[in-house]
Amino acid sequence: MIYFDNAATTFKKPKEVIDAINYALLNYTNSGRGAYRAALDSGRMVYETRVKLAAFFGSNDPSKVIFTSNATEALNITLFGLLHAKDHVISTVTEHNSVLRPLYKLESSKGVSIDFVGIDECGRLKYDEFEKYIHPNTKAIVVNHISNVSGEIADIEYVGKVAKKHNIYLIVDASQSAGSIDIDMTKLGIDILCFTGHKSLFGPGGTGGIVINGDILLDTFKVGGSGVQSFNKCQPSEYPTRLEAGTLNIMGIAGLLAGIEFINKVGKENIRKKEMRLIKRFYEGIKDIEGIKFYFDTDSLECEPENIRHGSIVSFNLGKIPSADLADCLGEDYDIAIRAGAHCAPLIHEAFNTKKDGIARFSFSYFNTEDEVDETIKAIKEIASSFS
Amino acid sequence: MIYFDNAATTFKKPKEVIDAINYALLNYTNSGRGAYRAALDSGRMVYETRVKLAAFFGSNDPSKVIFTSNATEALNITLFGLLHAKDHVISTVTEHNSVLRPLYKLESSKGVSIDFVGIDECGRLKYDEFEKYIHPNTKAIVVNHISNVSGEIADIEYVGKVAKKHNIYLIVDASQSAGSIDIDMTKLGIDILCFTGHKSLFGPGGTGGIVINGDILLDTFKVGGSGVQSFNKCQPSEYPTRLEAGTLNIMGIAGLLAGIEFINKVGKENIRKKEMRLIKRFYEGIKDIEGIKFYFDTDSLECEPENIRHGSIVSFNLGKIPSADLADCLGEDYDIAIRAGAHCAPLIHEAFNTKKDGIARFSFSYFNTEDEVDETIKAIKEIASSFS
Repeated sequence: MIYFDNAATTFKKPKEVIDAINYALLNYTNSGRGAYRAALDSGRMVYETRVKLAAFFGSNDPSKVIFTSNATEALNITLFGLLHAKDHVISTVTEHNSVLRPLYKLESSKGVSIDFVGIDECGRLKYDEFEKYIHPNTKAIVVNHISNVSGEIADIEYVGKVAKKHNIYLIVDASQSAGSIDIDMTKLGIDILCFTGHKSLFGPGGTGGIVINGDILLDTFKVGGSGVQSFNKCQPSEYPTRLEAGTLNIMGIAGLLAGIEFINKVGKENIRKKEMRLIKRFYEGIKDIEGIKFYFDTDSLECEPENIRHGSIVSFNLGKIPSADLADCLGEDYDIAIRAGAHCAPLIHEAFNTKKDGIARFSFSYFNTEDEVDETIKAIKEIASSFS
Repeated sequence: MIYFDNAATTFKKPKEVIDAINYALLNYTNSGRGAYRAALDSGRMVYETRVKLAAFFGSNDPSKVIFTSNATEALNITLFGLLHAKDHVISTVTEHNSVLRPLYKLESSKGVSIDFVGIDECGRLKYDEFEKYIHPNTKAIVVNHISNVSGEIADIEYVGKVAKKHNIYLIVDASQSAGSIDIDMTKLGIDILCFTGHKSLFGPGGTGGIVINGDILLDTFKVGGSGVQSFNKCQPSEYPTRLEAGTLNIMGIAGLLAGIEFINKVGKENIRKKEMRLIKRFYEGIKDIEGIKFYFDTDSLECEPENIRHGSIVSFNLGKIPSADLADCLGEDYDIAIRAGAHCAPLIHEAFNTKKDGIARFSFSYFNTEDEVDETIKAIKEIASSFS
């Protein structure tokens, strides 16, 4: 299988990640509960992961790295924990349902009001709208760092400045960006970062988290066993226990730690350069196909790979071929895995006018190869000519 | 290490579970999202796990098997999804904080009222209290199947009859029982079962779930990407998607499936018989130590292993030795892992008058051996005499 669905989950994991998971299965129990060696070792590994994640994202307090089961949970905890009755929030039409549905639920259940910043025809945010939408009751901006549909990278530094100027929180959905591009929360002005472990961080499924940079008290979400303060009727108020109830996914966290260490070892910039070389090669190979329509700013690829400012995603449609048909052909006839349809991001399809046929998305990882790209270009060309 | 903290997490997993996790890492992507082979294979494996879990627990609708990251999440989803303003709920003093803290939060935030059924000096529930606590607004009984402190097994069949008679829901916390004793939800009258995957089901951490037996619509909890109905502003109303948002822990679910299959292969009754033989041997070996006080009905062990009605837990204190000191001695001097303290179950310690010193808990698994039991008996005797 040639796998270009890395925006859903990276399929090929570094050997180090698989080894770490197997080590965990044989050596760790659960953490923060027992006082014997294996439990203490587990606790140390979990703490080391918090330290490395905080450093990885340019935050400075490992106790405010909260483990969740995925980015969706991280976003639910953050949004339900921060937004209260009558608050106003600014978001964007590039958001995934993991942001939109919590916001809609807050709208209907608590009267939270929402404004969505729009995009232009290339999927670029209309940045001037952020400041226009600020109200006296605006509490936060929540923005997708990299669109999982277009691959456009949001200018977080700009949004961070707007947030800071108006003294509101900036929440970033880093599902597609964590591990894919460098993120320095302090420099970018990000207050809360929500990430998943199983995409560009190369961890296994069932991992993700929240990084809180600063003095922000999110309401508790799930409550339960905490291993400390057992006679307290409430969840302990301190981070990370405040937001972590029940047994952690130790094996998953061990894998995530190995993923972070792999990225640190190879170098974020080397990973990025390779991925950008691949998407540029892919784009160059297909851009002249008749009737192809790309859903991102293709000019952003007109430079050397190290200077490209784009996610590891190339999205397009071929004439009137529904994206699902293209994906099916690639899957069945060529064993090439891509993703078609709506990608759980409804508003961007309204903006692109692609609600009916969706968009074909090719998403890349460090472990893809130039041969895979070339084979896929060939396949797409064959399909395009067979449909025409 | 001799590991007797299996009530926290089973440490030794069947080889089949480790193999399944490794297979998943190399062969599965995520499920319910893509239409290519690896995604479809993942989806089939997830569905097969729902089918096998439903059958395992005597329920009949695999679509109402909901995956969660642990029992705590399952209980939060269930309790917050079922109990509303002014409802009354009956629970017990044997509950873990994974039940108590959600109930206390519902009490303070929604005015839910709670009555707790007490226990006698052996940790047995005072069954006559269940019916006494029924009010016109009683919506549910939530009860711990096996106490994680005493190992006492609740008579769920009796509680199920009370619930049925008064037309209220029975929710069972099966954290300690799932995989350890046979559970037939239909026969026992259980409406909702909350379980964890990483204890007696031999799955990895990060797994657990809810099994709903009947037409019960729990409110949504986390909302987000569902892979279907992407243009619906709300989480899809159908199970399991209703309660599952975001990417599932595929690797974890694959491990859980292998755990279930291992239990089915070995036979629930064979696993149970071995565990009961071990706890009986352990109990016989230590029962005459001067000053030992057990926190369960020791008479229940006075029969053949196959007839013992007790969880795989032996809890006691040695005279005035704080449980933490005993655990530390065993851990440091003998490399024997047990658990001391409150075990996240505050009310049972009030009943046992053990708030200050906690209780030493030895919890067993199918993979423990008679040699481990004998070595531990010897260690406890040495410690007891050194303290006296």
